[in-house]
Amino acid sequence: MHSLTIDAINPAVRNVEYAVRGELAIRAEEYRKRLNGDEDHGLPFDKIISSNIGNPQQKGLDQPPISFIRQVAALAEWPELAELAPGVFPEDVIARVEELREDFGSVGAYSHSQGVPSIRRDVANFIEKRDGYPANPDHIFLTAGASAGVSLLMNMLISSKNSGILIPIPQYPLYSASLAQYSGVPLPYHLDEASGWSTSLHEIEETLSHPAHKEITPKALVIINPGNPTGSLLDEHTQEKLVELCEKYSLVLLADEVYQNNLHRPEEHPFTSFKKIVTRMKSPIPLVSFHSISKGVAGECGRRGGYFECVNISDQILALIYKMVSVVLCPPLSGQIGVDCVVRPPQPGDASYPLWKRETDAIHQALAARTKLMSQRLNQLPGVSCVNSPGALYLYPKIHLSDKAIAAARAASKEPDAFYALKLLDETGICVVPGSGFGQKEGEWHYRLTCLCPGVEEYVGALEAFHQRFVAEYGGVALAN
Amino acid sequence: MHSLTIDAINPAVRNVEYAVRGELAIRAEEYRKRLNGDEDHGLPFDKIISSNIGNPQQKGLDQPPISFIRQVAALAEWPELAELAPGVFPEDVIARVEELREDFGSVGAYSHSQGVPSIRRDVANFIEKRDGYPANPDHIFLTAGASAGVSLLMNMLISSKNSGILIPIPQYPLYSASLAQYSGVPLPYHLDEASGWSTSLHEIEETLSHPAHKEITPKALVIINPGNPTGSLLDEHTQEKLVELCEKYSLVLLADEVYQNNLHRPEEHPFTSFKKIVTRMKSPIPLVSFHSISKGVAGECGRRGGYFECVNISDQILALIYKMVSVVLCPPLSGQIGVDCVVRPPQPGDASYPLWKRETDAIHQALAARTKLMSQRLNQLPGVSCVNSPGALYLYPKIHLSDKAIAAARAASKEPDAFYALKLLDETGICVVPGSGFGQKEGEWHYRLTCLCPGVEEYVGALEAFHQRFVAEYGGVALAN
Repeated sequence: MHSLTIDAINPAVRNVEYAVRGELAIRAEEYRKRLNGDEDHGLPFDKIISSNIGNPQQKGLDQPPISFIRQVAALAEWPELAELAPGVFPEDVIARVEELREDFGSVGAYSHSQGVPSIRRDVANFIEKRDGYPANPDHIFLTAGASAGVSLLMNMLISSKNSGILIPIPQYPLYSASLAQYSGVPLPYHLDEASGWSTSLHEIEETLSHPAHKEITPKALVIINPGNPTGSLLDEHTQEKLVELCEKYSLVLLADEVYQNNLHRPEEHPFTSFKKIVTRMKSPIPLVSFHSISKGVAGECGRRGGYFECVNISDQILALIYKMVSVVLCPPLSGQIGVDCVVRPPQPGDASYPLWKRETDAIHQALAARTKLMSQRLNQLPGVSCVNSPGALYLYPKIHLSDKAIAAARAASKEPDAFYALKLLDETGICVVPGSGFGQKEGEWHYRLTCLCPGVEEYVGALEAFHQRFVAEYGGVALAN
Repeated sequence: MHSLTIDAINPAVRNVEYAVRGELAIRAEEYRKRLNGDEDHGLPFDKIISSNIGNPQQKGLDQPPISFIRQVAALAEWPELAELAPGVFPEDVIARVEELREDFGSVGAYSHSQGVPSIRRDVANFIEKRDGYPANPDHIFLTAGASAGVSLLMNMLISSKNSGILIPIPQYPLYSASLAQYSGVPLPYHLDEASGWSTSLHEIEETLSHPAHKEITPKALVIINPGNPTGSLLDEHTQEKLVELCEKYSLVLLADEVYQNNLHRPEEHPFTSFKKIVTRMKSPIPLVSFHSISKGVAGECGRRGGYFECVNISDQILALIYKMVSVVLCPPLSGQIGVDCVVRPPQPGDASYPLWKRETDAIHQALAARTKLMSQRLNQLPGVSCVNSPGALYLYPKIHLSDKAIAAARAASKEPDAFYALKLLDETGICVVPGSGFGQKEGEWHYRLTCLCPGVEEYVGALEAFHQRFVAEYGGVALAN
């Protein structure tokens, strides 16, 4: 019988792995269905807490959207509402929608493939204000979230089976997944957990000079700042050294800066963009910087909005990027409008400003407070240590697993941290991502969890109780066992 | 100096071509900027008419959106509007939004990577009602427009440099572009213009048995029905023969059915889905059918919404598809909501039904009337012949170019039809796509234009006057020259 068999499928596609929505998330989805369908579901919990993915507005977390963004979006969908519902929309919302529609017309029309020109201008102004250096709207591409842009750049830069891309370990698995999809070679460099997940130039150079990589042409260096899953922030001195390293080895710098607005202790750990560093240094290195509306305080994941800015990239290559984005026509207008609202929020004096300020302050403060409390409580657990993230949405605790736990995991054909995380899910309904999905040093085990859960006491309580049960069953840290 | 040079870029990416937004569209964009910026623009026209792309709601064409879709979208963005603006939203709109939000929560949250479950159920019901055979929501993937799905399937099916995909000529250049991007081999088969662009089994078998393709493994057959750029419709007998051919040669059938709701003479040329044919024949061939909300009467291009249905595809491969779509997280919620509205429109008795009926009838009728009038008028021009499309949004007239015109084109390093189309743009502001972007027989020349322009008399008048001037300058048809 004629059928499509797995060996007829592109092996590169078969090799892709994406743990954030992997085995754990699929099992959590099954549990969710059982919980929704049947009162006698036989599970020891009554809801799933999806801490596997930075999705603040999802059901159960329910981070409220920023009103300004949604008002602009609703009015852009149905502009007649301004007249049909007089007084409902703030004046600055009405003005913003009129201004946007002057450019793109209808949200139902394909826009310029690179993104609506006036929105790219607003992005350029945002960058200029952030960095103190000019930005060119023609060098900015609006995207369907940061992922779409990263995937495109990986596709472009991997020019042969010997093309290598330097990625941090731990990393956000979009990078390893795109490397597998486009048949490039991952060149992993380790971050240093002991110094708060700092980036070491020495580690990167070790990777580059490793004998196993002799035949590999390194094409680009991926930096995630603030880090995912680590939440760490680079200092400017390290950033300058990294730019020099890119000069030395002729690397494109791919700067994933989607968490630039999630800073929990900005005085101590501020964010500086690589655009600012590269411009200030007058460095010629090609830089692509990615941003997104899915993170920050907007958390507008479902709109699929983002952008990337190209620095020191020739017109010829910009034209190539334009050609590639034009094949899929344009980024979603709802995402593009979201980008406009995020890069150009209400200002003091605008009708929407007081509410916008209240809403964004509340989200910033809640996230910082939860991150602090969760890392403190996790650090008190036997065999758990956890860097108190200064940024992003995550914690990445290290868990010491006993030989007995490791043996039980191997017997079940699981990575030990996946074994731990599956048990956590089975017993509590909390879904996290095991460290093996992000990468870690040989013999170490971690998991990533988001700091988005509103009922943090109950949540951390469940994590603690589970860990205590696990330790009671499998014994304490490996050394003490 | 360190810089990113073009030869460092993936050669497969460099080879991609996409004429719909190619040289013509880029020049049109430059003219548009000049027209917007300067009263003394020095151009012999005062607006650009973008007939290069099926984008009905774009500025200048301004096809009105379907109110129901936009009302649902606006309320989903800002649900409080139901109370803030009492009486403004029809009851069925309020009910639909409540029902959808019961499932996905917030439009700002990532949804299930495969698409919101209840929207996939609505798609399955739509297919079942259309075909009379059941559809499984778990076999349906919501996408960011049909393009995203086609690109993914091409990526999966091209498993080596020797993988071939059968594509019609003329074709929509998304297919040749994805083949270039994923380094597959196009296996072109010609449609027959003389019989209204019909599909010939013989042509396909000729291509398969061509000596030049001896080393190539044919993986899939692409059928675009209704055709793009041709507007032709397959009859059921031909569809059955095509399914048998896929059985014989172990091909996956990729059915691009995005224009299934754009039928100008449905009694004479109805649409039958391949899902219906395959199911009725009890054929085991793997089939993937693509649909979109960008076309039809919705014309909601900017939302980026669509879906594909997998038939006779194993769970193992469905899991692989799921993994790939999960890497880019989820399709835009605004597109998913659009899909729900398109597959489940208001029904008789619903508050929104009368307006919905009026709006959709008007769009259907206007498109059919414009297509008829334009093909009649084009057929009256010297050296032009044009199939009167029974479907889709386009005409694809053949233009006979004189030796003098061809020589002038070659002297300007242009394809002759591109030369014609560039002159048309320069003199009238009308932007079409030359046939060389879609493919045509050696020595023939065509162009594709959309039938979306509202002021059709003025539009056709400008086309006619240009053609007469062109013939006056370069002489008539090649044979008579």
